[in-house]
Amino acid sequence: MNKEYEVVIIGGGPAGLTAGLYTSRDRLNSLLIERGLAGGQIVNAQWVENYPGFPEGISGFELGQLIHQQATKYGLETVTAEATGIELQQEQKVVKTTESNFIAKAVIIASGSERHKLGIPGEEEFTGKGVSYCATCDAAFFRQQPVAIVGGGDAAITEALHLAKFASRVIVIHRRHQLRASRILQEKALAEPKIEFLWDTVVEEIVGKDSVKRLKLHQVVTGEKPTLEIAGIFISIGLKPNTNYLKGILPLDATGHISTNEKMETEIAGIFAAGDIRYHSARQAIAAAGDGATAAIYAEKFITGQS
Amino acid sequence: MNKEYEVVIIGGGPAGLTAGLYTSRDRLNSLLIERGLAGGQIVNAQWVENYPGFPEGISGFELGQLIHQQATKYGLETVTAEATGIELQQEQKVVKTTESNFIAKAVIIASGSERHKLGIPGEEEFTGKGVSYCATCDAAFFRQQPVAIVGGGDAAITEALHLAKFASRVIVIHRRHQLRASRILQEKALAEPKIEFLWDTVVEEIVGKDSVKRLKLHQVVTGEKPTLEIAGIFISIGLKPNTNYLKGILPLDATGHISTNEKMETEIAGIFAAGDIRYHSARQAIAAAGDGATAAIYAEKFITGQS
Repeated sequence: MNKEYEVVIIGGGPAGLTAGLYTSRDRLNSLLIERGLAGGQIVNAQWVENYPGFPEGISGFELGQLIHQQATKYGLETVTAEATGIELQQEQKVVKTTESNFIAKAVIIASGSERHKLGIPGEEEFTGKGVSYCATCDAAFFRQQPVAIVGGGDAAITEALHLAKFASRVIVIHRRHQLRASRILQEKALAEPKIEFLWDTVVEEIVGKDSVKRLKLHQVVTGEKPTLEIAGIFISIGLKPNTNYLKGILPLDATGHISTNEKMETEIAGIFAAGDIRYHSARQAIAAAGDGATAAIYAEKFITGQS
Repeated sequence: MNKEYEVVIIGGGPAGLTAGLYTSRDRLNSLLIERGLAGGQIVNAQWVENYPGFPEGISGFELGQLIHQQATKYGLETVTAEATGIELQQEQKVVKTTESNFIAKAVIIASGSERHKLGIPGEEEFTGKGVSYCATCDAAFFRQQPVAIVGGGDAAITEALHLAKFASRVIVIHRRHQLRASRILQEKALAEPKIEFLWDTVVEEIVGKDSVKRLKLHQVVTGEKPTLEIAGIFISIGLKPNTNYLKGILPLDATGHISTNEKMETEIAGIFAAGDIRYHSARQAIAAAGDGATAAIYAEKFITGQS
């Protein structure tokens, strides 16, 4: 038989964990579905300086653990499984997973999004040790040091401009001979003396010891294989919200994100979305956690008929 | 001469402090204007159990201090003053205050809202010691104890229903002989055996020692003056966003709140709003902090022409 809950939460990052902390503390029978480690993407962040409340910073792993511990304390159940779909049966929502199906009065979708990876040697090994997917999070760790950024779209060039405030040099590595970024961003980047460009170039390997030391590159037109000494590499080649299992159930935008209103309500009554899965999300742990609290509060109002 | 900043933030609660932490860490020259103590309303919370990252809880005062310390560490300036208006001068915003005027490229409004107070003896003294303005925050502290709630609107009855999950008795004290709350909420409250009503009654004094012990009441029809033994009193008689100084500058809704989109943008380019001042805010520190981060990120994009 399918187990019943008042609230089922999909995703165990800061958004889902905070939603679970709130619904459990509000005495709603709550289940959190997470396919990996509780904490979500934040567990990959070696040091988080911008989560408010920790002036000295905190490791992403520890922050994830603390929030999970806090939610569990109030009764949140967690199951390790991957969500595969949601089925609407009158007032009930059936959340299908790789393990079992769960019935809920309200569902909070917080399954986040994933940054595309280069898939090259050294990338995984040095993630959080010089390899980063978020300049807002990590630029400040590279003061007066040379860094590379891989990508050519708006996001990559925005991150390059941000990095230029901290780093000694910012080398943009792009596999094509021109940027996809908007002209205004291109002009700004070209006008910034700290920013240099390596065109028609791909990164083949990230090399280091305790942290990143250099990149092995491949100039695809000339065939040259130079190396580049840097302290950090930022990878900005797109991201993908984890919403495949929601196709045909919830309206998704062209990039696969979910739109909500300020109550975190989606277009289906009783289904809420929180965190990086949302359109225009700030992609920050604190913003995701805030979304989770808001979704939980309006999910409770929905369940008790007060919304 | 008016001092110039890239970002001026109005309000030093979790929303404003987090916005300041982000803009300062992103190397934007930032000023925070706060009329009282850094931390905002949260400093009145004796113990906060639902701010994610602190499984054992934390005092509201300490949480406010920690976030302020963290923002200051990255260079946020703070001035003690009250904002009195914003003037638009071409691309610049002039924030007028009781101390001085400040010029900004972007303004983040995070001046919060205030719960209406009863204005009776004992109310201020026992705030955080049995007197609360937020059932979501504090209901869990009153397990198996009798509590009172003052008010008769939707918010008060929603809070009464929430309190009934924890408290042994919930006494709704209302100065009129019928509720203003919606019929569905009234029906739910009348059907809940733990909830009782005292009609035509006002609270004249809150009495206690280390914490609240009893209420001195006044039945306005009969003239009787009974007392009521309770462990906690929740006051839910409305709230007022601190937006008086924005009248005629920004569109406010009927309740004085500001509407934003998911980027925290208001209807005026370069003016953002975050936290309890927003329409449908969850009224939680974590949600306000999340708003602050989002506003800061989009303020930076606005200033650098990337939005």
